[in-house]
Amino acid sequence: MLKLDGKIDLQNKSNDIITVGELLIDMISTDYVENFECDTYRKFFGGSPANIAMNVKKLGISSLVASAVGNDGLGKFLLEHLHGANINTRCVQEVDYATSMVLVTKSKNSPIPIFYREADYHLAYTAELEEALINSKIAHFSCWPISRMPVRDTIEKVLKVARENNLLICFDPNYHPMIWQKGEAGIEYVKSIISKIDIVKPSEDDAERLFGKDSHQNQIEKFLKLGANLVIMTLGKDGAIVSDGTETITCNTLATEVVDTTGAGDAFWSGFYAAVVKGYTIREALNFGFAVSAYKLKFTGAVVDLPKLEVIKEVYGI
Amino acid sequence: MLKLDGKIDLQNKSNDIITVGELLIDMISTDYVENFECDTYRKFFGGSPANIAMNVKKLGISSLVASAVGNDGLGKFLLEHLHGANINTRCVQEVDYATSMVLVTKSKNSPIPIFYREADYHLAYTAELEEALINSKIAHFSCWPISRMPVRDTIEKVLKVARENNLLICFDPNYHPMIWQKGEAGIEYVKSIISKIDIVKPSEDDAERLFGKDSHQNQIEKFLKLGANLVIMTLGKDGAIVSDGTETITCNTLATEVVDTTGAGDAFWSGFYAAVVKGYTIREALNFGFAVSAYKLKFTGAVVDLPKLEVIKEVYGI
Repeated sequence: MLKLDGKIDLQNKSNDIITVGELLIDMISTDYVENFECDTYRKFFGGSPANIAMNVKKLGISSLVASAVGNDGLGKFLLEHLHGANINTRCVQEVDYATSMVLVTKSKNSPIPIFYREADYHLAYTAELEEALINSKIAHFSCWPISRMPVRDTIEKVLKVARENNLLICFDPNYHPMIWQKGEAGIEYVKSIISKIDIVKPSEDDAERLFGKDSHQNQIEKFLKLGANLVIMTLGKDGAIVSDGTETITCNTLATEVVDTTGAGDAFWSGFYAAVVKGYTIREALNFGFAVSAYKLKFTGAVVDLPKLEVIKEVYGI
Repeated sequence: MLKLDGKIDLQNKSNDIITVGELLIDMISTDYVENFECDTYRKFFGGSPANIAMNVKKLGISSLVASAVGNDGLGKFLLEHLHGANINTRCVQEVDYATSMVLVTKSKNSPIPIFYREADYHLAYTAELEEALINSKIAHFSCWPISRMPVRDTIEKVLKVARENNLLICFDPNYHPMIWQKGEAGIEYVKSIISKIDIVKPSEDDAERLFGKDSHQNQIEKFLKLGANLVIMTLGKDGAIVSDGTETITCNTLATEVVDTTGAGDAFWSGFYAAVVKGYTIREALNFGFAVSAYKLKFTGAVVDLPKLEVIKEVYGI
């Protein structure tokens, strides 16, 4: 059981967290424009789980990335980024498909990303992945890998082996119809996954896409009913509502200066994970999540140069 | 029969040429670099058949593009480019897949493109496409659409209807293993297509990829034997060898200044087509091909601002 004032009882393993899923290129327009008038784009290291792996390493815990990239120049670029952060890439598979890419044309209106999914959904369940999984304390994944075959099968095996080996299993239910193939019952599948995980961190929008409009409390109840042990529903600048099934609390953000919101959610996960691994209670870890998120918000980019968790603790007085 | 000193007997149709196949984004690095060190890319209108449709329109004949783009910002960008050139886009299908993209990182060594094929291979055989085909004089396509299902089926129907309606059928056998799916016998399929077309324009490299190394004359013979009526084998700066099955000639390029070779092959096709439509003999049309190619080589980009064919004729003294 996960309780807000309790610590999470993690197994004694050599690696702290393994993120399973998308490692890709974010190709982002250099300017804010309307109607794709911008001609120039810049490539960035991307993929939410990979960003979390990079962040937690900077905060001071260990991480592995289980992903598939293309055997191409963009895949090499991503691998070099991970090497540069001293993350072991033995679970990054190089496959005969192009490195996946998300093209984002920034706009004052809502920018609509274009998804080029190739290598990412060809992540195979391998002996290396199983070995890494068994030797990790936490497994993290998002909706990306469950939205496509064959990687969906990989995730199902990951969930089974993670459960058998007592990993803490955390899921970002960032459901979006655009990443699912036409005709697939994505929402039902996402719901079925929630029974197999410990912690779920939906945004308000995620909850609405999954369940339709409802009160915060009702949305939380729906995730709990599906089987999640801890629900962290983020509300943007309004913080979060968190429930362990017994107690429901609201948390405020610690943001003081907002320069760029890209990657703020990943930064939250990262602070939360680092604190949980370092033995803080869930309530404390939530504060660390907001502190790391607040730190990130002061800088541009999804992955910024985070300090160690101990520095975050001092700066934000946690 | 096509004879070098003869004109090509085209049907009296309302549209001159229909190009069937890839209309896509070329995403090209702004700098020459090694190892994908470049971060900045620029997007361009692309796809060889679409470039030809743009070129011939500028040269003074009419064209239609039969292609599939995504129902997204990049697809709209491509459609607007065609509208800007006054090309009717009734045969451009907007599908629920991302607009296809080729990412090219320029390099002093050989740049390796990364292919993001999504919308392009979902081109369907529709009533609009059939109507446009029946009302065109020439049909042009490359290896792209035959390299994937379901568009391969579309091309097979296009070939059948084009033959029944006496179109001149022209094929760019730009075979490259990277655009075929693993395990598919691409070379054999390309060879089977050559029996169904009139004019084939391989480069020396295309011929080598299809048949292995051999003398120019032998490569030409192989295309003729497979059923092509006219073979134009281009040799880069050394011009071309052309055979109608009876007579084989060599042609020199007319290039004087080479600024950028991108799109030079498409410019050749474009000059050749415009001249054929305007009633020149094949021998004369080959010269127009080299003249338009020479004109293009003086400027940067795949599609440059070509003058009318009559101006080309005067400038190059054909």
